[in-house]
Amino acid sequence: MEPPSPELRFDDRGLVPCVIQDWRSGEVLTLAYMNEEALRLSRETGELHLFSRSRNELWHKGATSGNTQAVKALRFDCDSDAVLALVEPAGPACHTGARTCFHKGDVEPQLPYEALPGLERTLSDRKANPVEGSYTNQLLADPPFIGEKVEEEAEEVARAAREETDERVANEAADVLYHLTVLLHSRGLTLKDAEEVLLDRRR
Amino acid sequence: MEPPSPELRFDDRGLVPCVIQDWRSGEVLTLAYMNEEALRLSRETGELHLFSRSRNELWHKGATSGNTQAVKALRFDCDSDAVLALVEPAGPACHTGARTCFHKGDVEPQLPYEALPGLERTLSDRKANPVEGSYTNQLLADPPFIGEKVEEEAEEVARAAREETDERVANEAADVLYHLTVLLHSRGLTLKDAEEVLLDRRR
Repeated sequence: MEPPSPELRFDDRGLVPCVIQDWRSGEVLTLAYMNEEALRLSRETGELHLFSRSRNELWHKGATSGNTQAVKALRFDCDSDAVLALVEPAGPACHTGARTCFHKGDVEPQLPYEALPGLERTLSDRKANPVEGSYTNQLLADPPFIGEKVEEEAEEVARAAREETDERVANEAADVLYHLTVLLHSRGLTLKDAEEVLLDRRR
Repeated sequence: MEPPSPELRFDDRGLVPCVIQDWRSGEVLTLAYMNEEALRLSRETGELHLFSRSRNELWHKGATSGNTQAVKALRFDCDSDAVLALVEPAGPACHTGARTCFHKGDVEPQLPYEALPGLERTLSDRKANPVEGSYTNQLLADPPFIGEKVEEEAEEVARAAREETDERVANEAADVLYHLTVLLHSRGLTLKDAEEVLLDRRR
């Protein structure tokens, strides 16, 4: 019998595993399953559809909770038996309310790729819930001021690159990253906006 | 019968799916499987061990190819029936020689979280294989010069934040990110070094 789809090899239950990843932060959110209908509906509607093995039925992610996931890209692996769904989540991925389902085991320390998304979440939270006397809130409210800070930190990382230790360079580079990210948020932008410029330039 | 491990629910074949992710870039590399022995050996040796369903045997990733993967963290999902292995890969994850197994389907355009890791790969390549007359190579060879460029771009993003459009702010922020990343590479560092400083500060 021919497989039901030329591009994917579904298993004997008609399923393939689907790794769900946040297209913006890179965070892995959930491991779930798709049947051919879920794949088709994900493409047709632009919202992630899965197959629930426990309920044995098609599952429109977020249909009940409102935490839908917009599909940005669907990739397949070398053996054509696994899907990587890159999504923009409308809310927490996990039924527990956690942002990701992978919240057990070695969750501390955080990993390098999580540093900037973590900073951005903190900034969004601080912007939504200002704290009186907070330096970050003072910066967020004042784009000219945060611009001056980015310039100061740039001078410091330049000096470090000329004549200081690796540790100093890394520290000053972290200061630039922090203040640049605050600058973007002070204007209602995010690192994603700058990252998309970098990607456009590579095309 | 009690499950063989209190922390994970292995299926009736004694397996759990394992999502393998690059701890530095966030890239999803492979979807594979672990049995309890593979999980134990991954912990004990610090190198990723899996279970090959096609060969029906324990599989020390990279034992033959040399492309081992150092285990940085092992996380489990809310249902305790999937593993997320965060690794530092010694080489390509895919048997085809590709960096990731997920190289089919919507691989273009690249996604926001891939912008900085992609830039860093280009810089490492350019450093290893200099191109005569290349602006990037000129920058990489001269930490004081690249420091000056970071300062220039910081002035420009500060001006944009004060008085220019969102599009200009995003463009100038991209320039800062590009030049800051080149600065780090000119000193033999990477964004990971600055990201680890940011994570340390949050502890």
